[in-house]
Amino acid sequence: MEKFDSKGRLYVISGPSATGKGTLCRRLLQKRDIELSVSMTTRTPRKGEIDGRDYYFVDKESFKSLWEKGGFLEFAQVFDNYYGTPRAKVEESLSKGRNVLLEIDVQGALQVKQEMSESILIFILPPSIDELKNRICGRATETEEQIKKRISKSVDEISQILHYDYYIVNDDLDEAVAKLTSIIDAYDSKIYPDLAKEIINFYK
Amino acid sequence: MEKFDSKGRLYVISGPSATGKGTLCRRLLQKRDIELSVSMTTRTPRKGEIDGRDYYFVDKESFKSLWEKGGFLEFAQVFDNYYGTPRAKVEESLSKGRNVLLEIDVQGALQVKQEMSESILIFILPPSIDELKNRICGRATETEEQIKKRISKSVDEISQILHYDYYIVNDDLDEAVAKLTSIIDAYDSKIYPDLAKEIINFYK
Repeated sequence: MEKFDSKGRLYVISGPSATGKGTLCRRLLQKRDIELSVSMTTRTPRKGEIDGRDYYFVDKESFKSLWEKGGFLEFAQVFDNYYGTPRAKVEESLSKGRNVLLEIDVQGALQVKQEMSESILIFILPPSIDELKNRICGRATETEEQIKKRISKSVDEISQILHYDYYIVNDDLDEAVAKLTSIIDAYDSKIYPDLAKEIINFYK
Repeated sequence: MEKFDSKGRLYVISGPSATGKGTLCRRLLQKRDIELSVSMTTRTPRKGEIDGRDYYFVDKESFKSLWEKGGFLEFAQVFDNYYGTPRAKVEESLSKGRNVLLEIDVQGALQVKQEMSESILIFILPPSIDELKNRICGRATETEEQIKKRISKSVDEISQILHYDYYIVNDDLDEAVAKLTSIIDAYDSKIYPDLAKEIINFYK
């Protein structure tokens, strides 16, 4: 229990695919009290997926209508389906002083930063491009051509890193989790005007 | 060993006296590779004090001459003596990418922030004013009048907290050390333009 309330902040974890973002997020959620933002999608649920846990599953009409009202912090179309981060839930949690975690791709992260300049963007990097290639090949579900495309996309994504606040090289998972935890813990000690007032009043 | 060099940063630890700043700094120095900035003073060394470790002991002429050249990041006169943080040593360490730790009073910290806007100011708070009073009384070297003055000075110092970047309530020492370490570790993951270029080149 902290003496002073810290501000709720939005942490956006992103980076190329196959860098272990998901595992990192799961480990963080075990260690720290932080809410995971659930995306909304128009695609049909896969076996075992639960509405409200894995995604909010909605039809295209509902998605479009929410989008028209500015109801998404970020949004993407992948083939025939839409994916997005509903704004209301995130804003509600932040206003209650809760930290929120968002795991999305680089395009999405940059959209979120534009919508919420106070959000904290954390870029997860592979140890090297060769290692990324190994990880993608290890999945053994893609052709050489597809792998080449994914590597090239990853390099493009990394070129956006200047827009990010923090980076973590996910080489050793425990170390990466420790770094991520430090970033969040440090923000919990950060001074902002309302907190400064609260502190000054407390010690008067 | 990190893959990318982090930037050397100046961490300024300050806050009212009797909040345990010194102990916190010693613990941090045991845990992290960070240079402690040594102050310069014109007062005579006390028994056991070593020049260059506890202070740089100099005469008034040398101190004044360095001060006239803008050679201090902060400076104070206490009765007949001068105290200050020599700028050159700090700047040299930072330029080599080394982190530097400075433990000084609130007045000094605010001077440092003006001289080096990138420095990171961390305010150490007592658990409460009553607890601060206990700690000061525990030293049993001061009159009631002196204690009152010190408490009032502490309250004045706390009123400057808005100019600081982080705060740590030093209630449980281990927790306070962990918070301080998180702040420094988080900065080691922070992205800045030169680092972004280095990263982009590495993954090209």
